[in-house]
Amino acid sequence: MFKKVCIIGCGLIGSSIARGIKKNKLATKVVSSNRSNKTNKKVIRLKIVDEASSDTIKMVKGSDLIIIASPLSSYKNIVLKIKNFLQNGAILTDVGSVKKNVISLIEKNIPKSVSWISSHPIAGTEESGPESGFSQLFKNKWCILTPSKQSGNKDIKLLEKFWKKLGSKVDVMDAKKHDYILSITSHMPHLIAYNIVNTTLKIKKKKDRNIVKYSAGGLRDFTRIAASNPIMWRDIFVQNKENTSKMIDEFIENLKDLKKAIKSKNEKKLEKIFTETKKIRKEIIKAGQDIGKPDFGRKQN
Amino acid sequence: MFKKVCIIGCGLIGSSIARGIKKNKLATKVVSSNRSNKTNKKVIRLKIVDEASSDTIKMVKGSDLIIIASPLSSYKNIVLKIKNFLQNGAILTDVGSVKKNVISLIEKNIPKSVSWISSHPIAGTEESGPESGFSQLFKNKWCILTPSKQSGNKDIKLLEKFWKKLGSKVDVMDAKKHDYILSITSHMPHLIAYNIVNTTLKIKKKKDRNIVKYSAGGLRDFTRIAASNPIMWRDIFVQNKENTSKMIDEFIENLKDLKKAIKSKNEKKLEKIFTETKKIRKEIIKAGQDIGKPDFGRKQN
Repeated sequence: MFKKVCIIGCGLIGSSIARGIKKNKLATKVVSSNRSNKTNKKVIRLKIVDEASSDTIKMVKGSDLIIIASPLSSYKNIVLKIKNFLQNGAILTDVGSVKKNVISLIEKNIPKSVSWISSHPIAGTEESGPESGFSQLFKNKWCILTPSKQSGNKDIKLLEKFWKKLGSKVDVMDAKKHDYILSITSHMPHLIAYNIVNTTLKIKKKKDRNIVKYSAGGLRDFTRIAASNPIMWRDIFVQNKENTSKMIDEFIENLKDLKKAIKSKNEKKLEKIFTETKKIRKEIIKAGQDIGKPDFGRKQN
Repeated sequence: MFKKVCIIGCGLIGSSIARGIKKNKLATKVVSSNRSNKTNKKVIRLKIVDEASSDTIKMVKGSDLIIIASPLSSYKNIVLKIKNFLQNGAILTDVGSVKKNVISLIEKNIPKSVSWISSHPIAGTEESGPESGFSQLFKNKWCILTPSKQSGNKDIKLLEKFWKKLGSKVDVMDAKKHDYILSITSHMPHLIAYNIVNTTLKIKKKKDRNIVKYSAGGLRDFTRIAASNPIMWRDIFVQNKENTSKMIDEFIENLKDLKKAIKSKNEKKLEKIFTETKKIRKEIIKAGQDIGKPDFGRKQN
């Protein structure tokens, strides 16, 4: 499918793509560029890629597919560095969680001979680093393509095929819609998880109580989400700050409403809300976006 | 250990206790009382208990351990019904998530010859019903005992031994402390999960958008928690309304603070918070209250 694929930033997502490419034989060669030499050595030792170096230009040269898989705040430096070394007709994509700003940033900077098509594979775990990736990460998960003014139609089809080969289902939409939807399904849940764990930490410090040990009642599930990559999420919230802020406001409004129902012992209202929220779980399982097992690996017998 | 154990309400927790009693041979006989005859038939068919009936008095008679494992709002009726049929020297316990109100309710109503010691096994899944229970549910999880004025010391020791045989680690504390700590580690996380899913549902209705399919980015984890038993959680929030309300206020304060940091692009502050929240995850895994695997059963390769 491709001759040389270059993955810039071989973390959880980048290394999962590299593994998927190798497993499904989607490229003759897979290379990677990482700032840290430790990471470059690791991805070669683990045979995740064929070649890796901190010399991004060297890695990018001759690639017909270049994938930026590093935090959003690193895009500008990367694009300014590589823009003059991109091969004619190459496809440039990324895996970032916010689209609007980076699409115009890259549009402005790359030569017209390159197709820039942004990708967002909606998949992940709370782990970071190349050792945590796995080739099946994208299986049955959605990948959203958000084309730019500089996306050839043929190249969109090719990139769509590439993600499908990795196991994804593909949707195409514009950046504005993407950033809005993802603020609901991903950015807000993560922010809320960070906030609940942060609130707990503050109480823990103030009251000096060992509350962690009683975390199996619900808290532990939030700590899993709040253990995601801090730099990545910092960048996401800042890049999508308008949508995120609006979501926070809606969330607070609804939470105040729930508080009122609790304080006034409005049992009917509470029951109605909690019964409705139960239903959406079934929809998600039906849509193949989660597994219906009760335990998620917790069941030990 | 006991001659006859009666479990009132054989749902996820009740049926897990029954399974654990049988597996570890902790009683000669295990019986259960459920309002629905369908449930009574099911728990006999699945061999979870030896006998089951909607006639609670009949089931309670002759029991030396009685466990209330039904929603908090059902306690009053149950206690009024059984109080005159409790065997001298029997231990009465429950598995409820809020303690203060129910402890005094039961203290007031039962005869002095019965030991009333409240229990709270901090374990669960989002599933409900007897078929979802399993004997290892309590393994390595904490069970908090909150004695009442009517708890014999010898009986506290015996009940402690019982929970340990089921796999639990046991702590003893007063109701006030219990209700405060659990509002942080359990009640608030559940309320927040309900609120995020409810907020999503409202947006979904208003905008008529299929956002469920993109839920793998974080939302799905909250829907799991928000799929817990609606009646049980309605009762918990109402019974612990003072602590819950205070926690909501703290949560909102911190969320507004995060919003401010995002809007003003205070990257240092965000990074600091997200790095700290990551640490608590390790503490929880070290404490044996969760598993460090990245996928919780999601990894498919």
